[in-house]
Amino acid sequence: MSNEKIKLTLPDGSVREYDKGVTGLDVAMSISEGLARNVLAAKFNGNVIDAFRVITEDGTFQLLTWNDKEGKSTFWHSSAHLMAEALEALYPGVKLGIGPPIENGFYYDVDFGDREFTAAELPKIEEKMLELARQKNAFSRRDISKKDAVAYFEKKGDPYKLELIADLTDGTISFYEQGNFTDLCRGPHIPNTGFIKATKILNIAGAYWRGNEKNKQLTRLYGITFPKQGELKEYLELLEEAKKRDHRKIGKELELFTFSEKVGKGLPLWLPKGAILRERLENFMRKAQVKAGYDQVVSPHIGSKELYVTSGHYEKYGKDSFQPINTPEEGEEFLLKPMNCPHHCEMYKSKPRSYKDLPVRYAEFGTVYRYEQSGELHGLTRVRGFTQDDAHIFCRPDQVKEEFAKVIDLVLYVFKSLGFSDYNAQVSLRDPETPEKYIGTEENWVIAENAIIEVAAAKGLKTTVELGEAAFYGPKLDFMVKDALGRNWQLGTIQVDYTLPDRFELEYVGADNQKHRPVMIHRAPFGSMERFVAILIESTAGEFPLWLSPEQIAILPISEKFHDYANQVRLMLQENDIRGNVDERDEKIGRKIRDAEIKKIPFMLIVGEKEAESKTIALREHGKGDIGTFSGSEFVDYFGKRIKMSLAGEKEA
Amino acid sequence: MSNEKIKLTLPDGSVREYDKGVTGLDVAMSISEGLARNVLAAKFNGNVIDAFRVITEDGTFQLLTWNDKEGKSTFWHSSAHLMAEALEALYPGVKLGIGPPIENGFYYDVDFGDREFTAAELPKIEEKMLELARQKNAFSRRDISKKDAVAYFEKKGDPYKLELIADLTDGTISFYEQGNFTDLCRGPHIPNTGFIKATKILNIAGAYWRGNEKNKQLTRLYGITFPKQGELKEYLELLEEAKKRDHRKIGKELELFTFSEKVGKGLPLWLPKGAILRERLENFMRKAQVKAGYDQVVSPHIGSKELYVTSGHYEKYGKDSFQPINTPEEGEEFLLKPMNCPHHCEMYKSKPRSYKDLPVRYAEFGTVYRYEQSGELHGLTRVRGFTQDDAHIFCRPDQVKEEFAKVIDLVLYVFKSLGFSDYNAQVSLRDPETPEKYIGTEENWVIAENAIIEVAAAKGLKTTVELGEAAFYGPKLDFMVKDALGRNWQLGTIQVDYTLPDRFELEYVGADNQKHRPVMIHRAPFGSMERFVAILIESTAGEFPLWLSPEQIAILPISEKFHDYANQVRLMLQENDIRGNVDERDEKIGRKIRDAEIKKIPFMLIVGEKEAESKTIALREHGKGDIGTFSGSEFVDYFGKRIKMSLAGEKEA
Repeated sequence: MSNEKIKLTLPDGSVREYDKGVTGLDVAMSISEGLARNVLAAKFNGNVIDAFRVITEDGTFQLLTWNDKEGKSTFWHSSAHLMAEALEALYPGVKLGIGPPIENGFYYDVDFGDREFTAAELPKIEEKMLELARQKNAFSRRDISKKDAVAYFEKKGDPYKLELIADLTDGTISFYEQGNFTDLCRGPHIPNTGFIKATKILNIAGAYWRGNEKNKQLTRLYGITFPKQGELKEYLELLEEAKKRDHRKIGKELELFTFSEKVGKGLPLWLPKGAILRERLENFMRKAQVKAGYDQVVSPHIGSKELYVTSGHYEKYGKDSFQPINTPEEGEEFLLKPMNCPHHCEMYKSKPRSYKDLPVRYAEFGTVYRYEQSGELHGLTRVRGFTQDDAHIFCRPDQVKEEFAKVIDLVLYVFKSLGFSDYNAQVSLRDPETPEKYIGTEENWVIAENAIIEVAAAKGLKTTVELGEAAFYGPKLDFMVKDALGRNWQLGTIQVDYTLPDRFELEYVGADNQKHRPVMIHRAPFGSMERFVAILIESTAGEFPLWLSPEQIAILPISEKFHDYANQVRLMLQENDIRGNVDERDEKIGRKIRDAEIKKIPFMLIVGEKEAESKTIALREHGKGDIGTFSGSEFVDYFGKRIKMSLAGEKEA
Repeated sequence: MSNEKIKLTLPDGSVREYDKGVTGLDVAMSISEGLARNVLAAKFNGNVIDAFRVITEDGTFQLLTWNDKEGKSTFWHSSAHLMAEALEALYPGVKLGIGPPIENGFYYDVDFGDREFTAAELPKIEEKMLELARQKNAFSRRDISKKDAVAYFEKKGDPYKLELIADLTDGTISFYEQGNFTDLCRGPHIPNTGFIKATKILNIAGAYWRGNEKNKQLTRLYGITFPKQGELKEYLELLEEAKKRDHRKIGKELELFTFSEKVGKGLPLWLPKGAILRERLENFMRKAQVKAGYDQVVSPHIGSKELYVTSGHYEKYGKDSFQPINTPEEGEEFLLKPMNCPHHCEMYKSKPRSYKDLPVRYAEFGTVYRYEQSGELHGLTRVRGFTQDDAHIFCRPDQVKEEFAKVIDLVLYVFKSLGFSDYNAQVSLRDPETPEKYIGTEENWVIAENAIIEVAAAKGLKTTVELGEAAFYGPKLDFMVKDALGRNWQLGTIQVDYTLPDRFELEYVGADNQKHRPVMIHRAPFGSMERFVAILIESTAGEFPLWLSPEQIAILPISEKFHDYANQVRLMLQENDIRGNVDERDEKIGRKIRDAEIKKIPFMLIVGEKEAESKTIALREHGKGDIGTFSGSEFVDYFGKRIKMSLAGEKEA
């Protein structure tokens, strides 16, 4: 039987023949020894498996390394086991919960018993992990009966694992073992612990067993590992930089926004400088939208419950969101608006429409409210009230593609003007396995999905397709933008919708004098103003493009004697729509300059004896130093040029 | 005893001596016979009394004629009695409810029994009223016991009057009688029916007895009367004009806004042209506010219930307004924001403040929601959600007067720019008789009330003082603006508030290094964007100043051949921030011009063969006709000049 053959289809489409019982490692070795040294796992017929697992039938096959998302995930899953082994070695009798990989690294929930555990002990665990890793202990898998699994953990005395096993269906259960550690685990795992060359335990947090606050609180250890020491170093630097750029930190330092427990969690209060930033962005979008033929509208922030029953949003959001608002009058019930679309549908219905009137493009900076658990809230990126740069395009079916293409143009224009040059598109389609999750007909879904795929291709976008990521009412296209730290942000959603026009019975009279149903396109290039500002802060570290800067100029008088002249300069700037403030504090000029630098104000105008007499200003640029002496009008001209450059995404050489 | 004397102090401060038992009519006669012919009632020690009532003690005294608000009110009250007399004469057995004077005219609630009453019968009633008026029947008053009053109406068989009497305390009750009609009435009344020379029953409506929908529905007849036929004619013309200018009618015709039952009653949806109008107004105010040193902020439309418990708004609005919003998380309860001030207080608290930082002026176009009974809703003037051009000034006590004065300057600037030239100020103070209605200390109220009165005087405003009109948390100054039809609108509220800073424990560190409490000033020059736009529509009849006009230009191609050139013109205008649309309908040019005139579009650009060839446009102005031929750049220049003129409130000669 050893010469029985199977056929594996590789990612490039080539088909290779192997002995039945071949492993991923064998396949790698058949290609190159170097590749074999880097193989972490394999993918067979779409499932990730151990690289050491035998394959006994034909199928599609792929080797996974550190460069693959699933390779990393397997690496980190195995690292969780390694950490557990280290913990058992260092803390005999420790009880273990669960230990999965996460987006960046892994964690394990641990019950240290009565022992007080502190961060000071982390280096010891990291060392132990590396010591065990150097042993290059192989991971092995075995399938055992439920009874044997229970017996194993009863003997070991691990109540959490026993609880997990109790929930499993009868039949065989898989155990994974490496070195002195055995875990209940579905796998897969990397070939051996030797791949792990660098490790860091990043964080300790409390976590209720199974997420239920009635259960015992375990200690969750978050860790990350790498196949090279250098990569850990880079990662930690990135983490440090991200911490510095945290929009919550910069938002506070620059006084852009604040939160108040009394107003309510997740409800940002935009302070003056943040409000300017936001207003600038809105004006920018407004202008671009007017050019693109949109009409601005304004709708209320509530609507009758009936409205959202019609739209389907009540069914979707009703239970888990802000609850209905009752009134003293009977039969009236309102909801905080979770979406702007139903209101725009009613506006569309405010008069009869002809095919010649379409497309109708309604744009609104519409503030919507959605309930998030307080534990999920995070600065401006996860809030309970946010303003979308929303628009809905009502068009004829024959206009869908063209309108969709125009929206892509608008989104790309926004990215260019805001300096986002590294992006790709993600097309989100239905999960074909759970059609019951979506509303609308099969036919309409197919038409909409194809339109998006075709337009994205025609625009030459780098596109990935994700099944199951569509909204419940239609397929969509999102842009994934990479920031300066290499992090991905989802921005610029565009969505085709054949469902709402049906639910609201929207109509237009066609050239045939018959009634037809329009198609809707939802789109929001910024997404939400809150989240977009957070992304802008984190990607620019608060050094906004000049045109966006809430405080463009700091006017710094050398002493109180020059306050009058400084204020004349401020008024002159104001008349030219330049935002500047006078630093009238009783501080030395050096200190004033330093403070303006910290506040990342793009320009400083220094005014003293010489400047006041000659009616000039000494110009200094943030991070660059002195530029020279300017008259007022010279400076206004110079500033105008710099604004234009900043809008075009250019920087001064 | 007949020569016993009393002293009456007249409005000019002079004191006159009369015989005890003198009447208002006697006093009038002592001045001039002509005056006596016009006296409708009198005011003695602040109370309005019959001109025929005897006066037996010293006091302040004033004669009331048609020129006085209270004179008119008495006239209309007597007219209600006259209508009742006419109704009893025409419809024997009719039952009467109540019949008070209102702002313009009077009404009487009538039970016609099983009889169907129609508008066709109104002229008959009007005629009967005039017939009875010509009899010059004197009004007389008598005080009778409750028992006798009951006996009278039992005999007459009037259940409504009996119900009213039952609610009165024991003691004497006053009856008024004229001609064949006697009514339970507090009075006062005019000397005789002969003063009433013109009458019109304007409207019939259903009205539940005592406003309770469980009671029987009576027929409410609304009427108005005048002392001269000419005045009725003028009034009816005014009414006709007001109907034409009704903002609901023009709003629909010009597609400015709409309502949807499904979105909810009283929640306006701003259509594109209305949204432009609103945005222009907001930008205008924003600019004025930046100049005046305000900072724009943005806050959410909800807040925790706790926030409004702290502010006192929950106590005030809680029960009768939109009810609290519950959430899936325990202990969280939110309210739709009825006011922006609590949010701004929390923003003030976001960092420590020094006396040098004050005043802090937070401005926000803040949308608030207040529940109004559905029967009270009216177009944009009574809505359930509206956007205030709100601001709160936090200042030191020594800055209150100056800040208050600056706000008055801002309000007057707004009035000038929007063409409101006829206004006066109303200072609203506490009702000294119901101090329990107000929150805050006596001392703070006195300080605040005096500050407002002094500043209004210093600014030379025509001011009236109204007791009992203050908000529950502080005194205020409102402007009453007269529109083209002579109607008064309340605009531009300014309010001093010593209460909220206390409730929110706001602080600043003074020059003395001690903690002090700031003072708050609330102000909103427009009031609400919704109501202000309604006022603008009604006062301009939809012919907005050029700078505000949602559609400034209609580009009218003579035929389809010139659509391309027309669209080139449109793009050229767009680049110069001029709002214009091309009328591409397949209609004759005459029709296109007529339609643009109806839509009150200020300018029309006609483009045909000649214009397309010479790259010019033929300019036509709304309501004026042809102006001449312009090149593109000439027109842009000309338009710029007209915009400037319109902003300064000037019109083309």
